[in-house]
Amino acid sequence: MKVQRITQPGGPEVLALEERPEPEPGPGELRVRVRASALNRADLLQIRGFYPPPQDVPADVPGLEYAGEVEAVGPRTRRFKVGDRVMGLVGGGAWAESLITHEREALPMPEGMSFTDAAALPEAYLTAYDALVLQGELRPGETVLIHAVASGVGSAAAQLCSASGARVVGTGRSAAKLARASEWGVARTVLCDSSPPAFADAVRAETGGRGADLCLDLVGGDYVPETLNALAPRGRVILVGLVAGTSTELNLGTVLVKRLRVTGTVLRSRPLEEKIALSQSAERHLLPLFLSGALKPVVDAVVPMSQLRQALERMERNDSVGKLVVRWE
Amino acid sequence: MKVQRITQPGGPEVLALEERPEPEPGPGELRVRVRASALNRADLLQIRGFYPPPQDVPADVPGLEYAGEVEAVGPRTRRFKVGDRVMGLVGGGAWAESLITHEREALPMPEGMSFTDAAALPEAYLTAYDALVLQGELRPGETVLIHAVASGVGSAAAQLCSASGARVVGTGRSAAKLARASEWGVARTVLCDSSPPAFADAVRAETGGRGADLCLDLVGGDYVPETLNALAPRGRVILVGLVAGTSTELNLGTVLVKRLRVTGTVLRSRPLEEKIALSQSAERHLLPLFLSGALKPVVDAVVPMSQLRQALERMERNDSVGKLVVRWE
Repeated sequence: MKVQRITQPGGPEVLALEERPEPEPGPGELRVRVRASALNRADLLQIRGFYPPPQDVPADVPGLEYAGEVEAVGPRTRRFKVGDRVMGLVGGGAWAESLITHEREALPMPEGMSFTDAAALPEAYLTAYDALVLQGELRPGETVLIHAVASGVGSAAAQLCSASGARVVGTGRSAAKLARASEWGVARTVLCDSSPPAFADAVRAETGGRGADLCLDLVGGDYVPETLNALAPRGRVILVGLVAGTSTELNLGTVLVKRLRVTGTVLRSRPLEEKIALSQSAERHLLPLFLSGALKPVVDAVVPMSQLRQALERMERNDSVGKLVVRWE
Repeated sequence: MKVQRITQPGGPEVLALEERPEPEPGPGELRVRVRASALNRADLLQIRGFYPPPQDVPADVPGLEYAGEVEAVGPRTRRFKVGDRVMGLVGGGAWAESLITHEREALPMPEGMSFTDAAALPEAYLTAYDALVLQGELRPGETVLIHAVASGVGSAAAQLCSASGARVVGTGRSAAKLARASEWGVARTVLCDSSPPAFADAVRAETGGRGADLCLDLVGGDYVPETLNALAPRGRVILVGLVAGTSTELNLGTVLVKRLRVTGTVLRSRPLEEKIALSQSAERHLLPLFLSGALKPVVDAVVPMSQLRQALERMERNDSVGKLVVRWE
């Protein structure tokens, strides 16, 4: 099988298509023929050597999500059979023609969905679902502040909030991207083109002075203190990304008086049982929303695997809206 | 009835004993003849004019907890009758011979407990129970880091952890006070007499490198970043007090990678329904531990109401271990 291998630490140019033996599925595992995958910022970090993958995946092949067909099953496999269309998250190694996954971590592709749409789904929607619903305890009628709302996770989160009866205020650094936010049900956008960013006044204005109940923060850095100002009493922040910086000065008095809750989260490093639990929960509660049409993957572009480098460079330039998908020809 | 009234903003010297008409209980309310109350740092703040009380309590009479006897009941009162021994939290006004409280917020005094022990109970143990059990999700087998472990809340929290099968590492700024910590079941103490404080290495050593699962932070300031270093993956911090400072530089990368959760909390400003819910939960889950002897109020001293000023000055000097109690003669 072909894989995209990291030949040395560096930029997108260090990836090379190479041949490698196909892996064999163990007990409870599937070998999936990957039809499409998608790009994540963590891939760029891993290619640069800054984000070592978990131990149980190929160290030199990036790629965190896939859609494809079951090609072989290991012993004691029950949920899927050869030929089933599946998608899911992996700790790495998705930029390959085949990958191994535990069958309880794989998700059935929604009926009628293309491989390229399905490949854009797992990381964005499972991250949003886990952060907003499982950790953030999203409730109908709430107002949710979503930073970087035009990103893959941001647009997925906005759709999920709308589908759940919540109202979204979204921030972003590009007016052109924010112009698309109403497609995902965003009620109000705030352009953050200054530093530090200013959005708390707009959030309070949008909520009759009360503030947002929940914030999905994909940005971090100096967005965090302003986020605390923008929250209602008992507001929750789920901190998922830190592209704006890894540290900040924090007003603990605000955290105390408003009784705020700040939770950091990552998916990739979780142990198998937690990853399975998330997949199983998402199968019950998230996938039905794709069948009903309430959720629809936001795909920036689909490129063949031979043009992966150009797609990575587009992501690095922050030019994309939603997900960049790569497909095997 | 006599009350301790704040005659003007200032130190303990501005309190004066004055006469005031007795209040009448409304529907569902009790008038309690206060036998004893206790001191809290919030009282000092309120006396200085920095901590305005909630709207439904006397603005000029401090005091957040009480033990006494039901003296009169309002219409539609069901849980208590005249003569019952009760204790509880109030938003203010406990430094009076009588106070009004909703009967569902009052707690029955544990059988055989004195008024002075009972007056030392509500704020310390309900704060600890709410923070550790209800918000912190304390589990047996966990290691809990408690800052200012010799304080009223700290010593109560340590007892509650021990009673719940958890192990405690406690910090403090006085070796003499920490010497008493084993009485409350503390497994290891760390003296923090430098700035910034250093305790993360000790916590990791005590937990085989893993770190603490939960931290009750009564101190804030520069304890917070070191606390994040001292926590295990998925560790939780409940931030209850800020005597060491109201802001700090925070490493968001640590919050994210370890998947930490930081929750700020206060009791006093909560709406009635939340205060009642806490009292009811504490009656079921906390009070039995006093009857069994697993919990025992830690009383630094009991002084008559005429010596309240000296007791407040002792608290200001950080000389007390556990709670300072005042009683009506």
